Amino acid sequence: MAKLYDGERSSASYRLRIALNLKRIAHERHTLNLLAGEQRAPDYLAFAPAGLVPAWVEDDGTAFGQSLATIEYLDATHPEPRLVPQDPRRAALVREIALAISCDIHPLNNLRVLRYLKRQLGQDDAARDEWYRHWVREGLRAVEATRRLHGEAGRFCVGDAVTMADLCLVPQLYNARRYAVDTAAEFPALDAIDKACLAMPAFADAAPKS
Amino acid sequence: MAKLYDGERSSASYRLRIALNLKRIAHERHTLNLLAGEQRAPDYLAFAPAGLVPAWVEDDGTAFGQSLATIEYLDATHPEPRLVPQDPRRAALVREIALAISCDIHPLNNLRVLRYLKRQLGQDDAARDEWYRHWVREGLRAVEATRRLHGEAGRFCVGDAVTMADLCLVPQLYNARRYAVDTAAEFPALDAIDKACLAMPAFADAAPKS
Repeated sequence: MAKLYDGERSSASYRLRIALNLKRIAHERHTLNLLAGEQRAPDYLAFAPAGLVPAWVEDDGTAFGQSLATIEYLDATHPEPRLVPQDPRRAALVREIALAISCDIHPLNNLRVLRYLKRQLGQDDAARDEWYRHWVREGLRAVEATRRLHGEAGRFCVGDAVTMADLCLVPQLYNARRYAVDTAAEFPALDAIDKACLAMPAFADAAPKS
Repeated sequence: MAKLYDGERSSASYRLRIALNLKRIAHERHTLNLLAGEQRAPDYLAFAPAGLVPAWVEDDGTAFGQSLATIEYLDATHPEPRLVPQDPRRAALVREIALAISCDIHPLNNLRVLRYLKRQLGQDDAARDEWYRHWVREGLRAVEATRRLHGEAGRFCVGDAVTMADLCLVPQLYNARRYAVDTAAEFPALDAIDKACLAMPAFADAAPKS
């Protein structure tokens, strides 16, 4: 059976858990303790050489680590429900929003980066948290503006069906709130999408337990 | 005619320029002065609300900014030559490498982030440059390990044909060298791919002029 290696609070892991739930793909889940450095253990690096979570490993050894690459792969191999539309423009808009979160927010606020700010650059908790909120706010403002530019005002990020963009948004809002960004007050349109998603068991069951 | 708004040295812009050259897509090019903040001008934000380059704008107003979303869009609308393979596993490996660069290296070393390190966090040039090199090296090591994991030893990142992964690698190596990473010595396999790519006019013509 395919295996998911993930981190409880990792945004990228959370995205993939939602995809697996929506598509009802059977798998074994192995949750790593990232604070203890389990993602750097040699037996993990053997199939996840970047030392990051998540990792998706199939029975024949096929292994992928980038969450969006894995979601696109699962969308091709398990197309129901489709998370990237087949129309090229709709697909581009879904990827535009997914990448705005996955490239322009998430990597800046990853555990390894926050640690670098403290350990190598000598920043205190307040400066680290302000860094976190700065990039979250910049990025979420861009997501809102992108939706407006494309006339999107539906129930989800793009239209009225869940797409890969929503799989990126919900974990990012979860982590923004952990750093005291009031998403309901600052980003009401995105917060409403978040609530609509979390009303679905596929999203709620994927949420971090702590 | 479609318009490309780009930055001369911006990695994400350089990726898109290569794609447009390979696919021979006619367009007008408008190069912004990023150091002067032209990407924050209101008339640019009207169609590029993230305030980043590149932006790709078609005659009917369709506009995308994320380079990978735009490349995937162009790959669907102008499939010759194909930059993301149609086989789901090969496509996933191409995206895995493209995202390892686009998510795990590039966003950390973006102009706005390097400025934040200096202005808000009070870091000097040496600390900023060390930050740059740290994430480049971590990321490129992961790309090399990913290729080994998948048994890739061909002329390009994935196999013997150019893919979206190469469009990400070449600009990243260009920028790594600007920050004094000796890519030939430290990453010989990737450096060889870079040389093979730059022997092609579509890559060489897209390279920054300064």
